[in-house]
Amino acid sequence: MDDRLGRVADDTEMRWNGWGDPAKAVELPLAVRTLLPLLLGRIRRPEPAVALDEVELAPSALDAADIGALEAAVGADGVDLSNEARIRHAGGRSTPDILRRRQRMQSAPDGVVRPATHEEVAAVLGEASARHIAVIPFGGGTSVVGALDPQRGLHHAVVALDLRRLSGLIRFDAVSHEAVLGAGTTGPEAESLLAARGFELGHYPQSFRYATIGGFAAARSSGQNSAGNGRFDTMVTGMRVATPTGDLDLGRSPGSAAGPDLTRVILGSEGVFGVITEVRVRLHPVPRERLFEAWSFTDFHAGAEALRRVAQNGGGPTAIRLSDEAETAVSLAQVGRIGKALAKGAGVVTVYEGDHVAERRARTAALLGASGGVSDGEGDAAAWLAGRFDGPYLRDALLDAGVFCETLETATTWSNLERLRDAVSAALRAGFSDAGAKPYVMCHVSHVYQTGASLYFTVLAGIRSEPLAVWRAVKERVNDAIIDAGGTISHHHAVGRDHAPWLEAEIGDTGMRILAAIKRELDPAGILNPGAVIPLDRMG
Amino acid sequence: MDDRLGRVADDTEMRWNGWGDPAKAVELPLAVRTLLPLLLGRIRRPEPAVALDEVELAPSALDAADIGALEAAVGADGVDLSNEARIRHAGGRSTPDILRRRQRMQSAPDGVVRPATHEEVAAVLGEASARHIAVIPFGGGTSVVGALDPQRGLHHAVVALDLRRLSGLIRFDAVSHEAVLGAGTTGPEAESLLAARGFELGHYPQSFRYATIGGFAAARSSGQNSAGNGRFDTMVTGMRVATPTGDLDLGRSPGSAAGPDLTRVILGSEGVFGVITEVRVRLHPVPRERLFEAWSFTDFHAGAEALRRVAQNGGGPTAIRLSDEAETAVSLAQVGRIGKALAKGAGVVTVYEGDHVAERRARTAALLGASGGVSDGEGDAAAWLAGRFDGPYLRDALLDAGVFCETLETATTWSNLERLRDAVSAALRAGFSDAGAKPYVMCHVSHVYQTGASLYFTVLAGIRSEPLAVWRAVKERVNDAIIDAGGTISHHHAVGRDHAPWLEAEIGDTGMRILAAIKRELDPAGILNPGAVIPLDRMG
Repeated sequence: MDDRLGRVADDTEMRWNGWGDPAKAVELPLAVRTLLPLLLGRIRRPEPAVALDEVELAPSALDAADIGALEAAVGADGVDLSNEARIRHAGGRSTPDILRRRQRMQSAPDGVVRPATHEEVAAVLGEASARHIAVIPFGGGTSVVGALDPQRGLHHAVVALDLRRLSGLIRFDAVSHEAVLGAGTTGPEAESLLAARGFELGHYPQSFRYATIGGFAAARSSGQNSAGNGRFDTMVTGMRVATPTGDLDLGRSPGSAAGPDLTRVILGSEGVFGVITEVRVRLHPVPRERLFEAWSFTDFHAGAEALRRVAQNGGGPTAIRLSDEAETAVSLAQVGRIGKALAKGAGVVTVYEGDHVAERRARTAALLGASGGVSDGEGDAAAWLAGRFDGPYLRDALLDAGVFCETLETATTWSNLERLRDAVSAALRAGFSDAGAKPYVMCHVSHVYQTGASLYFTVLAGIRSEPLAVWRAVKERVNDAIIDAGGTISHHHAVGRDHAPWLEAEIGDTGMRILAAIKRELDPAGILNPGAVIPLDRMG
Repeated sequence: MDDRLGRVADDTEMRWNGWGDPAKAVELPLAVRTLLPLLLGRIRRPEPAVALDEVELAPSALDAADIGALEAAVGADGVDLSNEARIRHAGGRSTPDILRRRQRMQSAPDGVVRPATHEEVAAVLGEASARHIAVIPFGGGTSVVGALDPQRGLHHAVVALDLRRLSGLIRFDAVSHEAVLGAGTTGPEAESLLAARGFELGHYPQSFRYATIGGFAAARSSGQNSAGNGRFDTMVTGMRVATPTGDLDLGRSPGSAAGPDLTRVILGSEGVFGVITEVRVRLHPVPRERLFEAWSFTDFHAGAEALRRVAQNGGGPTAIRLSDEAETAVSLAQVGRIGKALAKGAGVVTVYEGDHVAERRARTAALLGASGGVSDGEGDAAAWLAGRFDGPYLRDALLDAGVFCETLETATTWSNLERLRDAVSAALRAGFSDAGAKPYVMCHVSHVYQTGASLYFTVLAGIRSEPLAVWRAVKERVNDAIIDAGGTISHHHAVGRDHAPWLEAEIGDTGMRILAAIKRELDPAGILNPGAVIPLDRMG
């Protein structure tokens, strides 16, 4: 029975070996191609990427009985063993993921299972537990931390559980400003369904176009409008979850004190405890107004101090972002603008949406001005808004040109922000230097809180050979530096498998034991996303 | 080593068999004494309460070896077996608790243990686990849900772990607007230490004067300024916790996505997983301005609709409260004002503190006026502010006069608010009616969210005999009604033992299994607060 209030068609498949819509792929502008050797030294074009039908996979490890059981759970059309489906679910969209997609021999799940209801998800988990098949929950496929690696653990096979069929608006409460969305609903689908009713969720991470509501919840996503609309954590008021040993229906009421908030146990659990099938979210009316304004500061230090004042004052912008000198100079975040000579110093973009926007802009402008900022008008802010989901297209073009490009992020308190930035920058430089490469390191603050802020790094480097191995070593060094300097191992990319070895340094042995105890209780067979969040050796 | 930045003296002991400072006890005004029989029928004065030295306790079940081990953990002056100490830690401050304090035979913990450091707490938990002694973490002693009952479970003895010595300001970060406070710091101590540095925490529940920072966290407290300052949940940025099997040091950074937020596992855990020893909180500058304004609406329905609009608009009051017609009429919340004839209808109080107060009042006033509200100026709002911590004193005077008085609370979405209010009111009336008593039921909304609000009920009744048994039956009926009508079993009083049997109806069997799994992992001997939150039969 389909009791959904509405769905919208959103069946664009992402480029299988890169980001986004193949039709939107970009070429590097000439200015950039000229600039890159100056920044990075000599660059060597990589081997051409293989075509989809050239990729070689091991045969599926699912046997006839497995396939029959999975088909009984979701119907024959819900089980796909084709090479194309397996390759399209072989990982996420980190730079290492994309480099792996360029190789002839690839690892992939043994099949793709597409449930259409909560009950079908529960049935798949039951069969998979009984048959020792690992299950990787899969939403939009945009993880950049290895959360979608086809890791089978001790099981004999692994399937990707594609949740895109669980999409649509399930319940809508205009009085309480709440909606229930299927976990497989993408960002644009959700906003389209809500906009038709006069509301907005307002969660715009860079992955917005492809990522799903369930994925936002599982990974504790943070959107570009977090200063005004909050992190996705704070938007979630309830959840329905299928686990291998029973269902969860969480979030009975706003403002409850009925024991620990179990929605927070599932938020950030990245599919290792259960599969989120429905998410209840708080909404706000579609913003009637939007203002934006760009500012310049002499340097990152001055800009960060200004952002702190804004964040601690309240009633300010919907989005605020500070690029450091290196990022401001090349303006990399905006497609096609790399290499444009901008004003020196550190650029700030502010956006105001919703109610009282003029008041909020005036208040924020007063603080920024008093902190040494100079208004640049609307120009750069408008360009940032126009291009804010397009950064990953540029990465593909850079990889094609032989330039390694990757991002990473962390967060800390305001008093520790510059120490952490220095430590991460130094680790990036030292790591690439050890590999004989000269990196170009950029940083911005994209999310502010009363007590601290995020730091988002973009690094470019010409790597002669073995980019996967070089990056693995650099990234380990950076993760160690983040922990040593008091940062969190992730502000919004989450843990996945790439950060799992560092989680214990952040939450301690006792914290890891809490996660493992919940995992054993809900998923005693250990089929769900083995090795993500909780390292396999923790599960004994 | 005492590495605290400061402490303030706050050693006022609460009245042992009632609320608060004995010097502030009130008599019922003549007008109230006249009004009560009209509202409730004939009232019979109860037996006089016993004096402290008349109370009879069973001998302490702690043996010499137990005492030696506990003294080794906290020093000889940290273990108190006196009858007075045991009686003062025999429970919280619900009406049943206070009625039990009026009886000659009482149950009490076998001793009171007063650690002064995190390490001493950990040492006590180790000894208690080894020696099978139950431990009831005890802050300000203001629980109203049975969280402090001296329940020993299957253990041979039970001690109260009094955390008041863990008080003071431990770290202070003026740049990041954060402070670390000892868990035993009371509300006034915390605000005094912070005010000296120009900051405020701004958490003002009715228990503010006595309750502790650790208790606020353990019980997911909500203060009267929650509309502006947030629930205590949202003020906590980190925690240090001693468990029987290891320490937790949580909350590394604002805005982390490093797995589930484990601070949320401890918030609301009411001492069953571990003992909170330090709490890191976000602060704001001491408000420079405060405005307040009272409003009248024709009825609760109109007032609730107006509050919803304010809550969903944003940038509004620091506190907003709506009393229903019954509460407005007797204005019970203000000491000495009961019986004063107020305007008919439903009264609203609004308070604005901090920045932009005039702007926020104007915006809120426009919404309230457009929703049919009439401004009453400052008068009633000022009286509410002046008396807002004093309600419990009035309860003591009512009990002395033979009038049963108790409060309970819940929350739900805006669209379900009136259905829930009707269901709870009906259950209260039917419950007392079955016992031959006529209750007077009042309700207010004290906490608002974008998606819903709390409902706080005060009930008065003349009960001829066996008030504890009568109330138990009424309260069971009310809890069933709350669950049936979609409310949460508690908005801010928490679960304790009184609500524990209803928690499964709210979070499901799978939710209870998560809590039990965490409990078994952290507290395998089951010494911590047995029977609170998780019913004993869940722990096997």
